[in-house]
Amino acid sequence: MKKGTSIIGFVCFMILVLISLGKAQPKTSENTEACLTCHAQLHPGIVAEWRKSNHAQITPSDAIKKPKLERRVSFQKVPDSLAHHVVGCAECHMMNSEKHQDRFDHNGFNIHIVVTPTNCSTCHPIEVQQYGKNLMAHAYGNLMNNPVYRSLADAVNGIQSFEKTKTMIRPPDLETNLDSCLYCHGSEMKLKGKISRETSMGKMEFPVLSGWPNQGVGRINPDGSKGACTACHTRHQFSIEMARKPYTCSECHKGPDVPAYSVYEVSKHGNIHSALGKGWNFNAVPWTIGKDITAPTCATCHVSLMVNENKEVISERTHQMGDRIPWRLMGLIYSHPHPKSPDTTPIKNKAGLPLPTELTGEPVVLYLIDGKEQEKRKMAMQKTCLACHSPGWVNGQWTRFENTLKTTNEMTLTATKILLAAWEKGAAKGLSQKDSIFNEAIEKKWVEQWLFFANSTRYASAMAGADYGVFANGRWYLNKNIQEMMDWLEFKLKNQPEKKEKKERPK
Amino acid sequence: MKKGTSIIGFVCFMILVLISLGKAQPKTSENTEACLTCHAQLHPGIVAEWRKSNHAQITPSDAIKKPKLERRVSFQKVPDSLAHHVVGCAECHMMNSEKHQDRFDHNGFNIHIVVTPTNCSTCHPIEVQQYGKNLMAHAYGNLMNNPVYRSLADAVNGIQSFEKTKTMIRPPDLETNLDSCLYCHGSEMKLKGKISRETSMGKMEFPVLSGWPNQGVGRINPDGSKGACTACHTRHQFSIEMARKPYTCSECHKGPDVPAYSVYEVSKHGNIHSALGKGWNFNAVPWTIGKDITAPTCATCHVSLMVNENKEVISERTHQMGDRIPWRLMGLIYSHPHPKSPDTTPIKNKAGLPLPTELTGEPVVLYLIDGKEQEKRKMAMQKTCLACHSPGWVNGQWTRFENTLKTTNEMTLTATKILLAAWEKGAAKGLSQKDSIFNEAIEKKWVEQWLFFANSTRYASAMAGADYGVFANGRWYLNKNIQEMMDWLEFKLKNQPEKKEKKERPK
Amino acid sequence: MKKGTSIIGFVCFMILVLISLGKAQPKTSENTEACLTCHAQLHPGIVAEWRKSNHAQITPSDAIKKPKLERRVSFQKVPDSLAHHVVGCAECHMMNSEKHQDRFDHNGFNIHIVVTPTNCSTCHPIEVQQYGKNLMAHAYGNLMNNPVYRSLADAVNGIQSFEKTKTMIRPPDLETNLDSCLYCHGSEMKLKGKISRETSMGKMEFPVLSGWPNQGVGRINPDGSKGACTACHTRHQFSIEMARKPYTCSECHKGPDVPAYSVYEVSKHGNIHSALGKGWNFNAVPWTIGKDITAPTCATCHVSLMVNENKEVISERTHQMGDRIPWRLMGLIYSHPHPKSPDTTPIKNKAGLPLPTELTGEPVVLYLIDGKEQEKRKMAMQKTCLACHSPGWVNGQWTRFENTLKTTNEMTLTATKILLAAWEKGAAKGLSQKDSIFNEAIEKKWVEQWLFFANSTRYASAMAGADYGVFANGRWYLNKNIQEMMDWLEFKLKNQPEKKEKKERPK
Repeated sequence: MKKGTSIIGFVCFMILVLISLGKAQPKTSENTEACLTCHAQLHPGIVAEWRKSNHAQITPSDAIKKPKLERRVSFQKVPDSLAHHVVGCAECHMMNSEKHQDRFDHNGFNIHIVVTPTNCSTCHPIEVQQYGKNLMAHAYGNLMNNPVYRSLADAVNGIQSFEKTKTMIRPPDLETNLDSCLYCHGSEMKLKGKISRETSMGKMEFPVLSGWPNQGVGRINPDGSKGACTACHTRHQFSIEMARKPYTCSECHKGPDVPAYSVYEVSKHGNIHSALGKGWNFNAVPWTIGKDITAPTCATCHVSLMVNENKEVISERTHQMGDRIPWRLMGLIYSHPHPKSPDTTPIKNKAGLPLPTELTGEPVVLYLIDGKEQEKRKMAMQKTCLACHSPGWVNGQWTRFENTLKTTNEMTLTATKILLAAWEKGAAKGLSQKDSIFNEAIEKKWVEQWLFFANSTRYASAMAGADYGVFANGRWYLNKNIQEMMDWLEFKLKNQPEKKEKKERPK
Repeated sequence: MKKGTSIIGFVCFMILVLISLGKAQPKTSENTEACLTCHAQLHPGIVAEWRKSNHAQITPSDAIKKPKLERRVSFQKVPDSLAHHVVGCAECHMMNSEKHQDRFDHNGFNIHIVVTPTNCSTCHPIEVQQYGKNLMAHAYGNLMNNPVYRSLADAVNGIQSFEKTKTMIRPPDLETNLDSCLYCHGSEMKLKGKISRETSMGKMEFPVLSGWPNQGVGRINPDGSKGACTACHTRHQFSIEMARKPYTCSECHKGPDVPAYSVYEVSKHGNIHSALGKGWNFNAVPWTIGKDITAPTCATCHVSLMVNENKEVISERTHQMGDRIPWRLMGLIYSHPHPKSPDTTPIKNKAGLPLPTELTGEPVVLYLIDGKEQEKRKMAMQKTCLACHSPGWVNGQWTRFENTLKTTNEMTLTATKILLAAWEKGAAKGLSQKDSIFNEAIEKKWVEQWLFFANSTRYASAMAGADYGVFANGRWYLNKNIQEMMDWLEFKLKNQPEKKEKKERPK
Repeated sequence: MKKGTSIIGFVCFMILVLISLGKAQPKTSENTEACLTCHAQLHPGIVAEWRKSNHAQITPSDAIKKPKLERRVSFQKVPDSLAHHVVGCAECHMMNSEKHQDRFDHNGFNIHIVVTPTNCSTCHPIEVQQYGKNLMAHAYGNLMNNPVYRSLADAVNGIQSFEKTKTMIRPPDLETNLDSCLYCHGSEMKLKGKISRETSMGKMEFPVLSGWPNQGVGRINPDGSKGACTACHTRHQFSIEMARKPYTCSECHKGPDVPAYSVYEVSKHGNIHSALGKGWNFNAVPWTIGKDITAPTCATCHVSLMVNENKEVISERTHQMGDRIPWRLMGLIYSHPHPKSPDTTPIKNKAGLPLPTELTGEPVVLYLIDGKEQEKRKMAMQKTCLACHSPGWVNGQWTRFENTLKTTNEMTLTATKILLAAWEKGAAKGLSQKDSIFNEAIEKKWVEQWLFFANSTRYASAMAGADYGVFANGRWYLNKNIQEMMDWLEFKLKNQPEKKEKKERPK
């Protein structure tokens, strides 16, 4: 058959050549041509990717002429500098370079290394603006500038030593943080200095950045902006297919703390995608339920502009993912209503801790969305569900899900009470002893109760990947862990030094 | 090239149009047309899926005319009501509605929500009959009506609280069970009441079902039947491709308790499927080894009708999966010969427990298949193996596998003896104290010994995905867990209240 | 559309038939034809696979005529016996049979069961020679003939029993080892005897081999050679596509001890492969970055001949994978420079242990490559990186990676010191007590510190799959495990028999 296919291929190719001759080629700017002179040789992979991208194939002027539903750009007026060329190396890496700490003179061109959301917003302003209202865009500060989370990060990444009979921990170095939490949360990029390198064009000087490379969702960029569009829209093909496929999300959402992808994979939706997705169209804009896909990926429910076959909008595109999420499932001790602001550093509970709930679970309502806003977001999410499921189905699923939020919070509360008892009885050192609440064995078990087991159970419920929420990291461990915390406490109390035991007897 | 492809596409399309014009369209029934009037708009996804299905493209009358090996239906005589239409909404959701608790008058039509195996058996009677003899069809009762398993489910799903110095557990609510074990085992669906909903056609009334939504394999349906064909033949495309791909099985067979998919994925069979399966034909009936596929998926060995290129049958289609399985690997304390009946609730061992083996491993032969039946099933399974492997290969693999059943049973027995010692010495409360055998830490370790580690090791052996059976949940833990059970026991005994310690000294 | 496609397909097919008629068919040898007479019937799957292979479609004489970069064979002169046929059953299973313990007279033919690298080297001598210099080729001896690793294998696979109040362990039987470590490391195959089997040609005698079936990378073959090309070049299609896809590597590199695939899957490279790889060309030789693929798989960085679109070589093909690897990340207590020789059994540290580092981490330099060789290998690896990334990116990544080697070694040292303290204080029995260093609970925790957690963290860093290295088996556990080792030690010391405690008080 191969031979026959080749012949047909050849005929098509000739037809294509004839058509192409009569048609204007997309124009690459002179600056970009200059880049390509060397870099097509130096980095063939990256250039080949770009050539496959929409960026290389359509000018912004043409892109904005498409019918509104089909547009992938959102500017009002074509920027003059982009009117007549496709978007190549120079269009991004030379845009607003003056605002970039990482700019450098490169063979007469003013180049910056890191392309930022501010650069992207030239053509995609609405998406960048929405994304800025996302928890994700604030992922760096929300972790590093919150003393409690920072202390958790230190307990994860810190380096322990052992001398005599004791262990000591020192805070993690920057490279370790970059290799761990900040890989996903994003790095803070700063100019460290310059370096000279021998190149095919002779000696050249380049800026050296701390925190590079990094594509974390909350990256602090050298132009002061936040985030990295390339976290999902992978360089340099920037393919919408890639951002819509669940694998992209798995880069940061697979582990036991946030097992969205792991759950999706065993859900019926994920099964359908794995089995039948090879025939779907992931490139169409808008994205048509039924025609392009017959089951959702992450993007379908959380981001994409979805329409039916009559081009009626089912859900609007949003890059402010919280728009459709009434509850925050993960990352915190208890599930709770979404925070109002994506910057969560100002949040303080009654005990003065920078947490959206009390240690015993009550939400700190001042900083969280109210029931009305929750209802609105629930409705926004359910629009997509209802494109395939009846209201009876959706209500049944939702009831079950919210019940799971309640019971997993209850199981976390139980673990928290055991921990509080351990602190009170001196079996471990906690808040009142001004000690880290994440360093002792019982504290680590407590963390796993919410960060791993409660989160996993909730995701399994939310996305109907129940198998994951039973034995693979869910309910089994929620219960087992409590038993082990109790045993640990019993042991510690039984084996405390005499003095302490006496002190406690009067109680 | 794209342009050329489009032109060819257009030519094909025109040819297709011309051909179609001269040909009768598959006929949709009037009732189904009525459904589609609204529902194609309301649930575009589900309708698009159905249009891609065989159900929408061929009438049962035509389906039964195919050569025997190619048939996907198994009725003797075309049911009158289905003779002249394809199988659409009405054909399933209005079939035998009078027997359905979940029926309701919907705009003048007598509709039921849940399509059941009894409904499917109209066209697929043999498959439904076979499936009914499966352990899977009885998965609800086998779990919920067996006091030991029920107690395990309660230990997994129960909600613990902590007051003073003690934890208390309360049994799980229904929603939690539905979100956990029953997601795969199946729910018991009952009519809870009616609900009024505002619709595009004005106010309408709908039944509300407890246990809905659910597609569990042993679902108790509103017409009294058991099971859900849609667990594997996913609605509403009912694609055989989907049922034959391993992802579908992963929905319930991936976790540490039954890691069939996890093992398959790292097995050579799974590797071949992942790497080369994109070019296979998953839709052909019968399924031809070598031509359609070059390595098995789950369905190949356990379910499908397999032939060679001369259309000689290698193995017959069966929906009674046990047909080819001599040993039961999982779900119970020890591996043992398959139970005779799919309903395992009548089984009782000498100690009066509803288990197919004694607590020390001896099989309860009365309820289990004998050696002759085991041999027959082994031979049935090996027919598929031998289509690609020599007898020497197959025997080597099987010897290893049965040795692993023996050694994993031995490692479970060791763990059981430690547990029995713990009960005897009062370190934990068990059977003789009429306490749950699943609630204390050492009991949970014991459960993991068989439910996770022995099961995983066995699956890894059975399907030759050895990597999974060593460090990923297998032999490493079988050994480590015993050490930890011993340490736990030592600690508990050393730290028992004075009185008990005295009582023990005389021993 | 299907109909139209079929018509086009038919036209192509007719063209193909006409072309084929005018062209010589690849020739199968008489011997192979004789094999096929029966075996095409007996094992349709395996024969169908072979028919799809290059082996069945091109003669070695034609294969060597291709331009050098496109060649898949590496012999200097066509072996006479292979000059005029394609490579079929007989060409491999009858080659040099006299040297094979597993040869037998089969219907007048001198056949051997196991095809070995020595057989493959007839056409692929350079690849076989390179592979022999690989750690992989020595995987059997490096495990089984090193007393420390052998003792670890025994601790993983041994069978424990419980009598009275004690556990006992007996060494694993051969079948268990074959089902576990040796599945990947390779078996030692020996002729056990002969067996008579009834066949379609009457009674026939076949050799029986211990250690069969096995495709482990370090298999000891019946002709004395080492390794199994079929571990990666899966029988009987021997598709280069399969060897280049990461699934193949996952067969042995997914578990927590060596999670290369698990990390790749969540890395950006893996995400790109999962999302866009369906359109890549995995069969091209040479393999062109940008044209054939736009992100690396395992083979891209570790094995394959890579070129740019001008056919300039980016990296040479190598089957000695260590060529591009300066550091050994896994399998041992500490990360260290790669060993000089692939046979690691002669290595001894100062304490006389067969380990490439001291127990406290210092490398045993005599047996390990020096800094210059490390630099050379680093450069060889980075050539591939630089095809898509700038030097600034690559240096940033590498700095982070080497920092992670340092800190994970440090975390392992801390765990080792705790273990040494446990041994010294009599809480566990270790080296000086001539006891296994892998059997007690604290020793098993120590093993997990390096074998699971440090290894996982390093892989996550090396391949930029950070998510895996934080909570999924990495830094979180590196820290938690130390806490648990400390608690275990405290408990054991507190609960030691009186006598010992007295002995310690004076300290």
